[in-house]
Amino acid sequence: MRAGFTLNLNPAQIAEYEESHRAVWPEMLALLKDCGISQYSIFRRGTQLFLTFTCDDFEATWSRIEQSPVNARWQAAMAPFFAPMDARAPGERFPMWQEVFYLD
Amino acid sequence: MRAGFTLNLNPAQIAEYEESHRAVWPEMLALLKDCGISQYSIFRRGTQLFLTFTCDDFEATWSRIEQSPVNARWQAAMAPFFAPMDARAPGERFPMWQEVFYLD
Repeated sequence: MRAGFTLNLNPAQIAEYEESHRAVWPEMLALLKDCGISQYSIFRRGTQLFLTFTCDDFEATWSRIEQSPVNARWQAAMAPFFAPMDARAPGERFPMWQEVFYLD
Repeated sequence: MRAGFTLNLNPAQIAEYEESHRAVWPEMLALLKDCGISQYSIFRRGTQLFLTFTCDDFEATWSRIEQSPVNARWQAAMAPFFAPMDARAPGERFPMWQEVFYLD
């Protein structure tokens, strides 16, 4: 499946977010790959981010990622860059978007 | 390159838009492939759409698509489903998002 979701940046920290993402820690990239993530793009427009990747099952994959100390360190480093998320449905981890079309 | 951009739907026509995209015309799919588009996903949340695909050069690719009568017919069929786009920068065809991270 291809997952898609949105996050929001603090306007003052866009440059730092982008700089971090030009140099994601090798151990964080390895973790994502180990958890079965591929074709992972993050797009930005203003303070909005759209994240999309391919994985087997979004909830299972993200739960695995969250068990890793590497991810805990990465998220702690990124946390200051984020503004509050858009409204989520009950039980949603992130504001999820549904794929309505795919052409390989 | 991977392009990403957003469009908006009329709230009353979400179902029709989705139905159309479960049955995109074979000649429209062939046109997209012929123009070098692959890994084309469209995601929806509420009335917002996020479109992303891989191509060689976004402007050149979309200009080629726009020369096709098949595309003209497709866009005419889709036009009633769309609400006005978000604000665009001068010269932007769509509200484009910049890719700030990619993991293959």
